[in-house]
Amino acid sequence: MLPYQTLIIIDKAGAMPIYQQVANRLVSLIQEGRIQPGAFLPSTRALAEMLQLHRKTVVAAYEELLRQDWVEAIPRKGVLVSKSLPGIKPRSFRPGGQVGGYSGGTGFSFNFVAPQPGIVIPGNKQRLVFNDGFPDVREAPLDLLLRECRRLSRGKAYAKKLVYGGAAGADHLRKSLSSHLSESRGLPIGPENLMVTRGAQMSIYLAAAMLIRPGDKVIVGMTNYRYADLCFEQLGATLIRVPVDECGIDVQAVSDICKKTYVRMLYVVPHHHHPTTVTLSAERRMKLLELIRSRRLAVIEDDYDYDFHYASGPILPLASADHGGNVLYVGSLTKSLALSIRMGFLVAPAEFIEGAARLRRLMDLRGDNLIEEALAELLDNGDIARHLKKANKLFHERRDILCDLLESQMGEWVQFKKPDGGMAVWTVFPSAFSLTGLASRAAAEGLALSDGSAYCSNAPAANGMRLGFASLNGTELKEAVRILRRAALGAPVVPSAR
Amino acid sequence: MLPYQTLIIIDKAGAMPIYQQVANRLVSLIQEGRIQPGAFLPSTRALAEMLQLHRKTVVAAYEELLRQDWVEAIPRKGVLVSKSLPGIKPRSFRPGGQVGGYSGGTGFSFNFVAPQPGIVIPGNKQRLVFNDGFPDVREAPLDLLLRECRRLSRGKAYAKKLVYGGAAGADHLRKSLSSHLSESRGLPIGPENLMVTRGAQMSIYLAAAMLIRPGDKVIVGMTNYRYADLCFEQLGATLIRVPVDECGIDVQAVSDICKKTYVRMLYVVPHHHHPTTVTLSAERRMKLLELIRSRRLAVIEDDYDYDFHYASGPILPLASADHGGNVLYVGSLTKSLALSIRMGFLVAPAEFIEGAARLRRLMDLRGDNLIEEALAELLDNGDIARHLKKANKLFHERRDILCDLLESQMGEWVQFKKPDGGMAVWTVFPSAFSLTGLASRAAAEGLALSDGSAYCSNAPAANGMRLGFASLNGTELKEAVRILRRAALGAPVVPSAR
Repeated sequence: MLPYQTLIIIDKAGAMPIYQQVANRLVSLIQEGRIQPGAFLPSTRALAEMLQLHRKTVVAAYEELLRQDWVEAIPRKGVLVSKSLPGIKPRSFRPGGQVGGYSGGTGFSFNFVAPQPGIVIPGNKQRLVFNDGFPDVREAPLDLLLRECRRLSRGKAYAKKLVYGGAAGADHLRKSLSSHLSESRGLPIGPENLMVTRGAQMSIYLAAAMLIRPGDKVIVGMTNYRYADLCFEQLGATLIRVPVDECGIDVQAVSDICKKTYVRMLYVVPHHHHPTTVTLSAERRMKLLELIRSRRLAVIEDDYDYDFHYASGPILPLASADHGGNVLYVGSLTKSLALSIRMGFLVAPAEFIEGAARLRRLMDLRGDNLIEEALAELLDNGDIARHLKKANKLFHERRDILCDLLESQMGEWVQFKKPDGGMAVWTVFPSAFSLTGLASRAAAEGLALSDGSAYCSNAPAANGMRLGFASLNGTELKEAVRILRRAALGAPVVPSAR
Repeated sequence: MLPYQTLIIIDKAGAMPIYQQVANRLVSLIQEGRIQPGAFLPSTRALAEMLQLHRKTVVAAYEELLRQDWVEAIPRKGVLVSKSLPGIKPRSFRPGGQVGGYSGGTGFSFNFVAPQPGIVIPGNKQRLVFNDGFPDVREAPLDLLLRECRRLSRGKAYAKKLVYGGAAGADHLRKSLSSHLSESRGLPIGPENLMVTRGAQMSIYLAAAMLIRPGDKVIVGMTNYRYADLCFEQLGATLIRVPVDECGIDVQAVSDICKKTYVRMLYVVPHHHHPTTVTLSAERRMKLLELIRSRRLAVIEDDYDYDFHYASGPILPLASADHGGNVLYVGSLTKSLALSIRMGFLVAPAEFIEGAARLRRLMDLRGDNLIEEALAELLDNGDIARHLKKANKLFHERRDILCDLLESQMGEWVQFKKPDGGMAVWTVFPSAFSLTGLASRAAAEGLALSDGSAYCSNAPAANGMRLGFASLNGTELKEAVRILRRAALGAPVVPSAR
């Protein structure tokens, strides 16, 4: 007889009924080949004694095994492991007695996904973060959103809406958002031109996956938003880089490349280039539009922080002009609403949206209907417009505070231009200056900070990083720059009296 | 002078400030080539008169254009369109005066995504739905989830957690869910083996995208979950189909194919095969495990409705046995919780999870931290276990009600086997019976129903459909089957006195 008392360990405090635990463990022993087909199990009385369980529990376990066809009951003889099961050679006992599976690697090989630069995630010791340019979740209209969710979830009429929905987003949200975008950004669109996604990144992935085939050439800026680069490369594209200067991406260079070779797509962030925050000049904008029209050049226009602008009104997107149906326009609601709920959108000709929605359905079926419906309500009732107005004022102040601090405290090291909008300052350090060292010294003092690697493309790069100001209030910004300065000096930071 | 009063249409009730509307419209006119570089704009006084606006509004608009570099101001002469802008040949005026862009198709070609069978979405006239097997959102613990979200969003300590998070899911949820799965499903895993996704479909897509390269062979059942088939094909796989009978997928056939050709992957739903709901027999289960181990065959085990079982305890997944690291285990939290929030998971060896998380970051960065954190709390405090117990009892009753009704009311037409678990009955009609006709007659009477196309693979298929019972209560089930019978009879349905 097998030493069942050591093979079947019961967790009496566990959530699973004990008879179920016994049955499952017996299944494992059969599957591992330790109990062979045709072998008798101990009588229920004997096993109950060995395991110190009530006999009824063991009877229930055996009944479960019978129902699942692992065992057969032979009247007056007992219960034996089904003879129809294949015999498995028992494997050597492993240390710890754990059944293998996930503790080692895979048995098979799998596709490669390139390593990615770290996103700054603060540890327990970092109370402050200079992030890539995120809004302040403390200012988010989360209460409004949750209130709306609660209201919707209680309404009888909504039960149907909450279960069923299309891959392009809830109809209500598509309608509200497309008119909101028409009004605020001059986009001549209807709901059929808009798809709600899980955030700008999904919009980029979807648009790119609809275009790129392995070997295709894609033009991006040098530098460029790193996660767009990686996305295009993962889809098989070869990147061609064009310079980015203080007027934005070099449109003449784009034009020259298009003359020489077939280009599948251009990725551009005209409003506030990532990472350097520059705005594409009026002149280049017009040249680019002409190029797009004449070459039928597919373009992903990423406008991730359109809603935040301080120097002038927002610049109209390329997508609002006549582009011959070639501009795929990508935006984010997550950033606009400072929500810890991710949502974005893709604007394109209707036939492209239809295709992208089909692809999205294969990727994750659809979004969260409850939240999409709730957001539509907030768009309709003006809550979102009010939030954006308030947030713009707040982030405008924070930009000014950070820029003043950088000038007065960090002037010896950094070069930067006050950004016209967005939520981060592009800050360039002398080329010999170690950003890794800076980041690790700052981290030790409680400030999480990029080490710059997220902004290096695979070519000579500026030694810079984005300092996000929107999620820190005035006091926090002061403290953060104080730590930054001390870290730059390489000296330990002494806590300030606040 | 251009007829500005017809070219610049102001929406005084719009959300956008009027000066901004004027500026934007002028930008469009410049971009369209209607106002050429070097041309003077009207004086602010003249334009104000033409548009019947206050002169200050036009001044503000011109200042905006100056800031954005569209115009230059020449002292004592006026404001002219920047000479540095490229000249654009004005295009012919279009009917409606709309600037083109999204009303037509794309200028470029794009990748093909195969058409998909319709998911049953009830229209306004359909008050009842036989869906594919969804839980009842009216019974969902949505209040608990939203309460938890509110609590978290108000806690100061959580602000940080809510903004930052990894692509594999919130740490807290990975930890809670992996121990929950270890306890309830016998999976020998830690948080490093688990990734939180946007639902089972995303888990399938991610796992498949990590494996499949164009031309690879993938084994699936005949029939099979249609959206898995489509996903693999979209990724470039060639499907090889093996029979599925009342004992599940034909494992011997899988083995034979593996001997003949290199197979990249097998997709299997051992617990309740989709669509036919059969459970893989104990014998085939053991054979399959042996095959997986010896061939190092990569397997996606889809266990989308594990939490619902009525005939016996839940069957342990393949993933709980020794599979040599080859089983990628996919599950859904959406179905378990009947939430209108989509969430699922993928279980795999740690190195595979790391790769899949990198891929997922390119697809949509990460999940919704707020909801992930809230769900972790509900797992920890036992709310989820309580909900599942209640839901199992309820859906068990509903299964029995539907099966009784089908037998008594639909016996002339349908064949079915009472399912051991899950949320749908696989119902087969005579081969000559038109499901399309049935669905349209039922729809006219208020019952949305599949036309069977979602269950047809691209080969001879059973003339069947899934009738989801979990989201309808007893009264609704009665009414639905009444309509179904009348639709089958081809006769109009008379409303019943309830």
